Amino acid sequence: MSAALTLHTYWRSSAAWRVRIALHLKGLAYESVPVHLVREGGEQRTPEFTRRNPQQLVPTLQHGDAVLTQSLAIIEYLDETFPEVPLLPGNPLSRARARALAQLVACDIHPLGNLRVLQYLEHTLQLPSDARTRWIARWVGDGLAAFEALLVAHGAGEFCVGSTPSLADCALVPQLYNARRFGVDLEPYPTIRRIEAACVALPAFAAAAPERQADAPPA
Amino acid sequence: MSAALTLHTYWRSSAAWRVRIALHLKGLAYESVPVHLVREGGEQRTPEFTRRNPQQLVPTLQHGDAVLTQSLAIIEYLDETFPEVPLLPGNPLSRARARALAQLVACDIHPLGNLRVLQYLEHTLQLPSDARTRWIARWVGDGLAAFEALLVAHGAGEFCVGSTPSLADCALVPQLYNARRFGVDLEPYPTIRRIEAACVALPAFAAAAPERQADAPPA
Repeated sequence: MSAALTLHTYWRSSAAWRVRIALHLKGLAYESVPVHLVREGGEQRTPEFTRRNPQQLVPTLQHGDAVLTQSLAIIEYLDETFPEVPLLPGNPLSRARARALAQLVACDIHPLGNLRVLQYLEHTLQLPSDARTRWIARWVGDGLAAFEALLVAHGAGEFCVGSTPSLADCALVPQLYNARRFGVDLEPYPTIRRIEAACVALPAFAAAAPERQADAPPA
Repeated sequence: MSAALTLHTYWRSSAAWRVRIALHLKGLAYESVPVHLVREGGEQRTPEFTRRNPQQLVPTLQHGDAVLTQSLAIIEYLDETFPEVPLLPGNPLSRARARALAQLVACDIHPLGNLRVLQYLEHTLQLPSDARTRWIARWVGDGLAAFEALLVAHGAGEFCVGSTPSLADCALVPQLYNARRFGVDLEPYPTIRRIEAACVALPAFAAAAPERQADAPPA
């Protein structure tokens, strides 16, 4: 598998960030192509990008001629194609735990607070800023409370599932950044905070962070 | 694997429906336990159900002592645990296609129109009925247009990916029922409609349909 990996990404997209973590955990070299989601109506809406990804979303990964969409599907593809440093546990039940936690974030938290939805709330529904903040706080709060309860119920290890980072940790860490950005209190989630600390201590998580991306604005 | 399978389900939940399709495609016997999501504030909010699934969502699958959450994670677990009648293709790229299509539905369409969000739009934001319908139409329309474009771009087979039903078809069919329920026009999506017709002709899809469930109200 010597075909080049190219990631279409945006520094603050939490879905793109999940894939960046996976690429760094696996030590895979890749080229970053920034797609500015807010400048001039959004570079993701150009005909060229739309041909690549009809959903007009990042991340989009090119591997040789293949174009892949959806962050969790991309990470599973990377895990199957480059098995070193596995991001899913070895047995079906633990794999289901890791996938369910990642999907809790990707299906039940993130979609309600992503850019297109926030833009709809602001411009179409004309919700004021405090109502938008309450909207986000509700879904992030419900989601993280359930995430914490599942970690406790299933006996989290050093990471979400076991002693090495998995798909679940790739999804969790970017969501926590978003939670803080919108003022959500993380104090009630001690297991989540312990696992986050273990993750961000790793060079792979650090290298994938928004402020470390070439397209991040100067600090 | 002789442990019993018990599915906590609701007749009209499209996420539970995905898992019912997978169970029927694989010919796995299971017990259905109905969880009435709207009666008396929602049976999913009881302490007993919350212990089982802190997200208070269906589907929840019990397999012996193990309790599993999140529809797509459950289907992957079933596929790994009962490999007969595989629901994911054999090669990593086709698997990524099937997962990405399923995630397009499960992450980018369904969460914006599910019960808790519709209740929030109605009761907290006090949106009138026509504004709620436009909200749903926007996300379902965007999502299905991209789904159709991806099917065309990647060359769908008789089903979403190849000549047998996969995870993607399990996600697509229930979403189309929801789309019709909210008056979304499916005319612009001929590939989707062709694949839906192939799916619903199969006994497994028919047996999983809402109106065939024990907890469905009388016609």
